[in-house]
Amino acid sequence: MKNAAGREIPTSLEGYKQIVPYAGAFATRAPEGQRHWGRLTKAAYPHDGGKVLKSVEEAIVASGLKDGMTVSFHHALRNGDYVMNMVMQAIRKRGIKGLTLAPSSFLNSNDALIPLFQDGTIVAAQTSGLRSELGKFLTMNKLAKPTIVRPHGGRARAIENGELRIDVAFLAAPTCDTYGNVNGVQGPAACGSLGYGMVDAKYADTVVAITDNLVEHPICPVSIPQYMVDYVVKVDAIGDPKGIATGALRGSQNPRDLIMARMAAQVVEHAGYFREGFAMQLGAGAASVSTGLFLRDLMVRDKITAGMAIGGIVGAFCDLLDEGLIRTLFDTQSFDARTIESLRDNPRHQEYDSGNYANPWNKGAMVNKLDYVVLGATEVDVNFNVNVMTDSNGIMMGALGGHPDASAGARCTIITAPLLRGRLPMVTDSVQTISTPGETIDVIVTDRGIAVNPNRKDLSDNLKGSGLPIKSIEELRDMAYALSGAKPEPLKVSDQITAVIEYRDGTVLDVIRSPLPE
Amino acid sequence: MKNAAGREIPTSLEGYKQIVPYAGAFATRAPEGQRHWGRLTKAAYPHDGGKVLKSVEEAIVASGLKDGMTVSFHHALRNGDYVMNMVMQAIRKRGIKGLTLAPSSFLNSNDALIPLFQDGTIVAAQTSGLRSELGKFLTMNKLAKPTIVRPHGGRARAIENGELRIDVAFLAAPTCDTYGNVNGVQGPAACGSLGYGMVDAKYADTVVAITDNLVEHPICPVSIPQYMVDYVVKVDAIGDPKGIATGALRGSQNPRDLIMARMAAQVVEHAGYFREGFAMQLGAGAASVSTGLFLRDLMVRDKITAGMAIGGIVGAFCDLLDEGLIRTLFDTQSFDARTIESLRDNPRHQEYDSGNYANPWNKGAMVNKLDYVVLGATEVDVNFNVNVMTDSNGIMMGALGGHPDASAGARCTIITAPLLRGRLPMVTDSVQTISTPGETIDVIVTDRGIAVNPNRKDLSDNLKGSGLPIKSIEELRDMAYALSGAKPEPLKVSDQITAVIEYRDGTVLDVIRSPLPE
Repeated sequence: MKNAAGREIPTSLEGYKQIVPYAGAFATRAPEGQRHWGRLTKAAYPHDGGKVLKSVEEAIVASGLKDGMTVSFHHALRNGDYVMNMVMQAIRKRGIKGLTLAPSSFLNSNDALIPLFQDGTIVAAQTSGLRSELGKFLTMNKLAKPTIVRPHGGRARAIENGELRIDVAFLAAPTCDTYGNVNGVQGPAACGSLGYGMVDAKYADTVVAITDNLVEHPICPVSIPQYMVDYVVKVDAIGDPKGIATGALRGSQNPRDLIMARMAAQVVEHAGYFREGFAMQLGAGAASVSTGLFLRDLMVRDKITAGMAIGGIVGAFCDLLDEGLIRTLFDTQSFDARTIESLRDNPRHQEYDSGNYANPWNKGAMVNKLDYVVLGATEVDVNFNVNVMTDSNGIMMGALGGHPDASAGARCTIITAPLLRGRLPMVTDSVQTISTPGETIDVIVTDRGIAVNPNRKDLSDNLKGSGLPIKSIEELRDMAYALSGAKPEPLKVSDQITAVIEYRDGTVLDVIRSPLPE
Repeated sequence: MKNAAGREIPTSLEGYKQIVPYAGAFATRAPEGQRHWGRLTKAAYPHDGGKVLKSVEEAIVASGLKDGMTVSFHHALRNGDYVMNMVMQAIRKRGIKGLTLAPSSFLNSNDALIPLFQDGTIVAAQTSGLRSELGKFLTMNKLAKPTIVRPHGGRARAIENGELRIDVAFLAAPTCDTYGNVNGVQGPAACGSLGYGMVDAKYADTVVAITDNLVEHPICPVSIPQYMVDYVVKVDAIGDPKGIATGALRGSQNPRDLIMARMAAQVVEHAGYFREGFAMQLGAGAASVSTGLFLRDLMVRDKITAGMAIGGIVGAFCDLLDEGLIRTLFDTQSFDARTIESLRDNPRHQEYDSGNYANPWNKGAMVNKLDYVVLGATEVDVNFNVNVMTDSNGIMMGALGGHPDASAGARCTIITAPLLRGRLPMVTDSVQTISTPGETIDVIVTDRGIAVNPNRKDLSDNLKGSGLPIKSIEELRDMAYALSGAKPEPLKVSDQITAVIEYRDGTVLDVIRSPLPE
C-alpha cells in the first residue's frame, strides 16, 4: 500500500508490530491510555544502599537479564563511548541470546557489534542513527526483526507509551555516587547533557549506571536521581574524551557552506518570526552552525534577543547565551567541550530530556514552540521530502535525530543542502528514503537558490522583498540535473525490507530495502 | 486485631481499602508491578499551545472534573495559600459532588473548606496534616470514607504505585509560562521548592497550573516541565507572601528548647556517625533548628563538613551551605524567605521531589542515607512511639510530614520533647496516636534527661562517655508523672473511627477514634 508520503510500504512485516501507515505529520494521535513507567522497586535495599557492584558481569546477573530481553544505552558519549561495546561483549560472554538492542543511537565505534548480530546475541536493533559498517550490515542483512529507526521524539514516545519496553538500561555515567545519582558534567568522560539517558532511566525496569568516576553520596548537580537507578558499577574508563567532544563546531570555512548559511540567516530575518523572544534550533552541521554566526550579527543589529535555543547544543550557542542574545538554552545533547562547560557552569543553560524535547504525544514538547529550525539534508526532492538516512548507494549512514521532530514543530523549517555533492544532484524527483516528510519542510536553501514549499504561501509572500534567489523546487531540481549532466538512474533495490523508518508518531514513513549489486 | 505496634485496629473499614496491618517498619515491601503514571496527552495541542485558559471555572470544565473524582493540591504556600480554597469554592459553585480531596497537607487556612465537607462537595480527605477547626471537624465527624493520613513518603508511594490516583491536580504556580513550565522561586508568591507538586504533576491525569505570574515561554529555571501540564490559568494572587514564609526559623530563645537542642547536638557528636560527609535532617521546630546552631560549632571545632542536609529546609541550613559546612542541600519544602532565595541563587541548593525524598518503595529514597535526624514530638511513650498528630484531647492538630520517613531512614533518630507541657506529662505509658513507630526511634531527648532505645545497644555504648544524663525511658516517664502530680487518665474515645494513620508502606499504623465528651 501507499502511505500519505507516497511511499510503497507493506501491509505487514514479520517481526514488526501491526503496521500503521504514515497519515500526515499531525494525523495520528495518542490513544487513550496511561503512560507506561518502570517497575516498582525490585529489591528492598539495605538501609544505606548496597547498589555498588564489582563488575559489569555482576551487574548483568543482578539485573536479571535473560534471552529475548531488550537492553538500551544512550549515545551522549558519541564516538568516545566505551560502554555499549563493553557491556554487550560481557553479555555475549555470558551466552545470553536473542536480545533487542535499543540505544538512542549507534555510532561508528559500534561496528564492533557486528559479530554479536551474526552469532545471535542480538537479533533486533532499534535506533535513531546507523553509520559505518554496522549501517551497511543492517541495510544488507535481514535479522529476525526489521531494524526500527525512530527520531528522538519517536523513541521517547515509544518508551513513554510502553511500545518500546526496556528491560535493562545500561547508562554511561560520567559521574555517579554510591547511591546511583548521576550527572554528565563532571568526571574525566564528561559529556554534558544526559537528555537521552534520562528517558531510559525513568522508564526502564532495571537501570545500571556504569561510571569511571564513582564518588561519595550525594553529588551536585543530580541529572538522573538515585531512585531510578538499581545498580552502580565502576570501570576504568567509560569513554575517550577526544571522541566525546566532536571538536569545536564554530562555523565553516567552506565557501559553499557560507553561502547557504548566509541565505538561511536571511530567510530567518524575513520569514516573519524574527522578533524579540523568538525560539530557534540549529543543527550541528557546518552550514547550520554558520547560520548562527550570521544570525548573531542580525540580532545585534536589530537588538533582538532569542527566548530560547534548543536541540543538540554547540559552543556557538553558548557564546550567544553568555552575550545575552539568548535567554535560555535547553540541552539534550552537548556537542563540544565548550557546551559541556556551559551546561555545568551557567544556570541559564538547562538540561532536559528527549521526551520534553520532542515526544509528540506528551502534553507539549519543546519543539512545538520553535519559530525556526535550520537543518541539513543528504538530499531533498520536489515534494520537499528530506533524506538524512541513506547514502547514494542506499546504505543507512545517518541519523534521524531530532530532524522530523523539529521540522514538525517549527513555524518555519529551513533545510540547507548543496545542489550537488561531487557530481550527484541533491535535489531530485524523489529521495531514496524519506526521513522527514515534505509537508513539514518550509524552505530549501541550496548554494544556487532557495525554494519555498507551496503550502506556505505566507512565507513566500514574506520573502518576496528579501532579495533572495527564490526559485521553484522544480527549477532547483532541473539545475541540479543539468549541472550533474544527467538525471540519475533510480537505485535498484531488492524486495528484502531490512529496516522501517518510523515517523515520530510510530506510523511507517518509509522502509529500507537492501540495494541490489550494481 | 492488634498490629505490630500494639494498636487495636479493625479488620475492615467502610470506605477504606482492604486493611493490611502495620507489620514492622521494614516488613511490608513493594508488590511486583509497574509504577503508575499519568495519562498520555489528552488533547492534540495546537502547534503553539493554547494551554492558557481564562478562569479557574474554565479550567475546571476543561479538566473534565466529574462527581466522585480525586483532586489534589500542594501545600508549599502553607498558610499563605489561596489556591486550594479558591478552586474548591469554584468547584462547589459548579455543583460537582462527592470529591476526594487529597492535598499534600491541610493548613489553618483550609478551615474555610468545612462547609464543602458538610454539603457533600467533598466526601473524603487524604493528607499529611490536619489542623485547626478542620482537624477537629474531621476528628469528630465520620465522612463517607475515613480520612487517610499519610507521611510524605507514603503519599508519594501511594501516588506512584497507583493507590492514590489523582484525576486533576491543581498546582499553585508562583511562576508559570504560557506553555506550562513552572517554578517556585520567582514571582510575588515565590515559595521555593515545589517538591510536593512535582509528584502530582508527574502522575495526575490532568494538571492545571494556577499562577499570578504568567510570563512568556520559556522560563528558567524549570521545576515542573510543560509536558506535564495541561492547562494554565492566571489569577490575581495565588498567595500571601506573609503566610508563605513562616518567618526566620533561626533558633529558639526559650531556655528549655536550648537545653534540649544542646543535648541533641551532643548526641549527634557522640552517637558514632559524626564524621566527614555525614548526612542530616533537622525538623523545622524551634529545638531542632537550635540543634543546628550547636552542631555548627561542633562542625567548625572538629573541621567536619556534612555531605548533605535534607528535608524541609530553613535559613540556618542555607547559612551552613554558604559557609561551606554542608556540601549540598536537597529541598522539598522551603520554610522561609532566606531559603527561597538560596534555592533560587545557589546551585548547590537542589530542589527535588517528595518521592525522591522518602518513597519507601522506589529504588532508594534520600532518607535512607541519613545519619541523623532530629525531630520534635507532641508526646512519646515507653515503647518509643511518637505522636505528632493528635493533641491531649485526641483532636488531629499536626502533620506526619516526613517524620516517619526520616525516622525509618536515619541511622540515628533523635526526638526532642519536653518532659511536661503545662502540667501534662509528655512521656507516657502509651501515646494517644502512634504517628511514628518506636522501633524507628533511637534517642529521646527531654529537658530532664535522655533515653536510648534498648534495641540500639550500640548507641548506648557510644553515648556512655558523653556526660549526657542518660536514663531509661521508664525513668523519664516516672519523672514526668511525678512532676505532673499524677498519671493521666486515658482519654475516652468512641467506637467511631474517623481517620486512619497509614505507615509509609500503606499499612495501618493506627486509627483515630472520635473522643467522647468529657
